[in-house]
Amino acid sequence: MADAAPRTNPLVLSIDAMGGDRAPGAVLDGIDIARVRHPGVRFLLHGPQGELERLIAGEAGLQGVVEIRHAANVVAMDEKPSQALRRRADTSMSNALDSVKNGEAAACVSAGNTGALMAIAQFNLRRIEGIRRPAIAALWPTMHGQTVVLDVGANAGSDARHLVDFAVMGAAYARVVFGLERPLVALLNIGAEEMKGNDAVKGAAQALREATGLPMSFQGFVEGDDISAGTVDVVVTDGYTGNIALKAAEGTAKLIQHYLKEALKRSWMSMLGAAIASGAFRILKIRMDPRSVNGGVFLGLNGIVVKSHGGADGLGFASAIDLAIDMAKQNIVQRIADGLKGVSAALPVPAESAVVEGEAAE
Amino acid sequence: MADAAPRTNPLVLSIDAMGGDRAPGAVLDGIDIARVRHPGVRFLLHGPQGELERLIAGEAGLQGVVEIRHAANVVAMDEKPSQALRRRADTSMSNALDSVKNGEAAACVSAGNTGALMAIAQFNLRRIEGIRRPAIAALWPTMHGQTVVLDVGANAGSDARHLVDFAVMGAAYARVVFGLERPLVALLNIGAEEMKGNDAVKGAAQALREATGLPMSFQGFVEGDDISAGTVDVVVTDGYTGNIALKAAEGTAKLIQHYLKEALKRSWMSMLGAAIASGAFRILKIRMDPRSVNGGVFLGLNGIVVKSHGGADGLGFASAIDLAIDMAKQNIVQRIADGLKGVSAALPVPAESAVVEGEAAE
Repeated sequence: MADAAPRTNPLVLSIDAMGGDRAPGAVLDGIDIARVRHPGVRFLLHGPQGELERLIAGEAGLQGVVEIRHAANVVAMDEKPSQALRRRADTSMSNALDSVKNGEAAACVSAGNTGALMAIAQFNLRRIEGIRRPAIAALWPTMHGQTVVLDVGANAGSDARHLVDFAVMGAAYARVVFGLERPLVALLNIGAEEMKGNDAVKGAAQALREATGLPMSFQGFVEGDDISAGTVDVVVTDGYTGNIALKAAEGTAKLIQHYLKEALKRSWMSMLGAAIASGAFRILKIRMDPRSVNGGVFLGLNGIVVKSHGGADGLGFASAIDLAIDMAKQNIVQRIADGLKGVSAALPVPAESAVVEGEAAE
Repeated sequence: MADAAPRTNPLVLSIDAMGGDRAPGAVLDGIDIARVRHPGVRFLLHGPQGELERLIAGEAGLQGVVEIRHAANVVAMDEKPSQALRRRADTSMSNALDSVKNGEAAACVSAGNTGALMAIAQFNLRRIEGIRRPAIAALWPTMHGQTVVLDVGANAGSDARHLVDFAVMGAAYARVVFGLERPLVALLNIGAEEMKGNDAVKGAAQALREATGLPMSFQGFVEGDDISAGTVDVVVTDGYTGNIALKAAEGTAKLIQHYLKEALKRSWMSMLGAAIASGAFRILKIRMDPRSVNGGVFLGLNGIVVKSHGGADGLGFASAIDLAIDMAKQNIVQRIADGLKGVSAALPVPAESAVVEGEAAE
């Protein structure tokens, strides 16, 4: 088992103060919540010194745990990743990542532009040896708790080897967040039968079935409705499909909330009932609240990066900090590297599936 | 505008009596509901003569509208499409499709094996000239009503030209079911920006932007959460992504129903409130009930085929019949052919996106 000791003592997190639609206000609110939840943790706050100093001027609690690091520039929320990468110098985002790279902080949290954060994180931190593409993992609520879903990172396509890497990374993440020894891992597909799906999922399934020493129990294929059903602990898919599935599910949750609100407004009887049952609706709201599981985690890099939702408020940002602390304490980077070492030699990924549009491996 | 007259007079539907998990009981229940909703419509019922005769023996209402056509064999729900196609002779499914082919019936409804139904339908009815791959369209509930989503048919991959065909077919379907002159059509993608996505969606977007004479208003890209938001009338995607998005959304709806039930059971106050608001919950249940919009529609064939959900009960099967009658009355096959004629010459599909992946036919 990997050593669970944090990389720095006391634990220090690096925060991009200027990322997100409501930055820096929501970021500071989030730290204010997190400092109470996690006494002893310290925060390096990257952003414009003057502005940040003014904002925390009256806040004794924040001042005690925060150290401001000046960054003159900001990556815009709508900036192209390639452009953000070129002009990353002295941005709050790039500097926040550098604090992880140089060992000053155990993890970085940003609510900024996802594509830019991934591009700069890859450049600054580099990929773990053997990982060909990092992934963004989400925690998806299910009937039995949560399931890790990756990649939800909006990459346009993945080949079989990418998917195998995602499976190994997802398993390591599930061990950290769920405390499972051998997580159940499956590939997302359009049917449970072996002959269905595209070349990438078929190739990855073959490789995972034939591999030995995997730090997971490979379950084959699951379908879209298995995610919320909680059939497995880790669902692996390409970033295009994962992103669309996640957003389709979010849209459905919003739609049902809308239906429920409309239905309860239709008569005074319903409104009375809703008032009496308001405790239940509060619980429902909390369980459906995306803020309570906020944070896409970047896996596959030499450092921990948690992406908070761009629109997150203080509570949402605090959840992302929770996640970063959890991952740092459990040393996930080392666990992924170890997991990969155990299996990479044994992974017989078919040669033809190394290319995205290869022949079917039947 | 196309002639809205039905192809047969009075309207005749061809029914696969033996398709679906609850066949033939649920099928007969469905016809029993539909005959009251649509007086004058007649039904050709394909299946084993003896068994069907016994089942409708006491049912005067059914006997008046049904004509049994003997079919000795049945396509199994778990049969591979290729196998079902080979041994289709004298199956209730193939015979039901033949009744549409030979003009005896205006549409076919089956709750049987989806892949087999698509394979046999393509073989028996053939594709509309100019359509390279049929699609299955779903009606997805939204904040403003419904949105057509296609393809949800579990094809492994689509190229740019397939997606353009789907856009034309989806627009024709939206005109029929929503009565819109120029439906708003968009491609499902992982971001609204032009440079995002795979080659197929980028190629299709370029073709649709440059085309003239399109029977739709092309809106570019939408994301997964735009489906339920009802941003556009038609959302176009490949069958792999569409199938996974649809099932992920179904799973989410089930999860939230589960959350709601749990939350309302937590205290007697909540239970009392739920009892008082029970009218509202009934309405919510109806709006979330997949049976009220049951029926994936096969588009792109020389004939109307509606696929009812395999697990549908009588009410669900009746909804699929509603849809088939609507499409038959509005002559959708001709509308798709006309829509395609108007634009096909003007469609400059880029050469490199013409072949993204091999045909997914199993």
